[in-house]
Amino acid sequence: MITISAFKWVPGFARGQVRDLRVRWALEEAGLPYRTRLLGQGDQDKPDYRALQPFGQVPIFEEDGFALFESGAIVLHIGERSEALLPKDAAARARATQWLIAALNSIEPFVMNVASIDLFYKDEQWAKLRRPGAVEFVKRRLSALSSSLGEKPHLDGARFTAGDLMMTTVLRILHHTDIVTSDARLSAYVERCTARPAFKRALDAQLGDFQDAA
Amino acid sequence: MITISAFKWVPGFARGQVRDLRVRWALEEAGLPYRTRLLGQGDQDKPDYRALQPFGQVPIFEEDGFALFESGAIVLHIGERSEALLPKDAAARARATQWLIAALNSIEPFVMNVASIDLFYKDEQWAKLRRPGAVEFVKRRLSALSSSLGEKPHLDGARFTAGDLMMTTVLRILHHTDIVTSDARLSAYVERCTARPAFKRALDAQLGDFQDAA
Repeated sequence: MITISAFKWVPGFARGQVRDLRVRWALEEAGLPYRTRLLGQGDQDKPDYRALQPFGQVPIFEEDGFALFESGAIVLHIGERSEALLPKDAAARARATQWLIAALNSIEPFVMNVASIDLFYKDEQWAKLRRPGAVEFVKRRLSALSSSLGEKPHLDGARFTAGDLMMTTVLRILHHTDIVTSDARLSAYVERCTARPAFKRALDAQLGDFQDAA
Repeated sequence: MITISAFKWVPGFARGQVRDLRVRWALEEAGLPYRTRLLGQGDQDKPDYRALQPFGQVPIFEEDGFALFESGAIVLHIGERSEALLPKDAAARARATQWLIAALNSIEPFVMNVASIDLFYKDEQWAKLRRPGAVEFVKRRLSALSSSLGEKPHLDGARFTAGDLMMTTVLRILHHTDIVTSDARLSAYVERCTARPAFKRALDAQLGDFQDAA
């Protein structure tokens, strides 16, 4: 049985955003059942967890003694078992991987620059001075992404892949702003991908696992 | 024949850092010959290039009409052809991918937060205020990475993989600081990986392709 790690509790702004959502979604697309290993406060910093995840993050993926971290690597690993995530054709598969990595390395860092200012540092002077430039930068990246998407339903064409899964979760990080929603194409793209039943099941499962503090 | 894109000219601080180095290194490890498509000033923003690379970055990989961007995806694609980068064993292969993605998503964004302050924004007030916190954050991540590496020669053990290739190029970004070199294990790790003949050939090739402005 596949086990993934997730948090027992996170603040409201992080609910529906924690990175185990990506892996839950991939497992739902692939039709693979899983159970969760829920971490209480501080469990992510204990030696047994850090031995599996050096940075104390979620999720990790465990199955029959094999353990893996990094949501991107886990989604690709699940994709090896499911054409719903990674096409069999070598070129199409490489392009799906390309979009997954574009989400993680060309978009997410700039999305997180804005999100971390808004969520963690908003009262700091540097954050107030930096925010306009950080917003301008991510808007340029998203404008290029929107142009590349064009009128296609998904990044590589008709078909949903692991690249769309990852890009959607990255774009959702900015849901507290109008940065994504002000782009009609990207907004429709996020709606299209999150309308998938597998996404809804994954989101419900993450939200359902949070245990409100007594 | 494989073609990769690179810049004809970049400023001194970027020489030896531009992301085509990662792909050149992977091709050298795999023993695959390649030629370069050198971009002049502004070529990266022309429609024909943007059609292949939405963000106007290097490198792209082209072969027989197939095109791919994102250095991480290209290194994995090359890895499909070479056990020097990706082991055949499925678990070891997934872990190599895990470290490649850890480099791109759990380390590089925090490395770049410091590097971009130092290289692009150092005279801005927000950058002066932010730098200590950005340095502290990346040091925490690197300390966790160093603990995970431990006494192993490479991230997953004895063997060099695509994960080490990517992590090394990410750690090298901070070569203008003592943030990596002050950690004896990480410093020795970078030296070990960059001592590989394939790395030296790749670096020489990138440096050799720069054409100094007339």
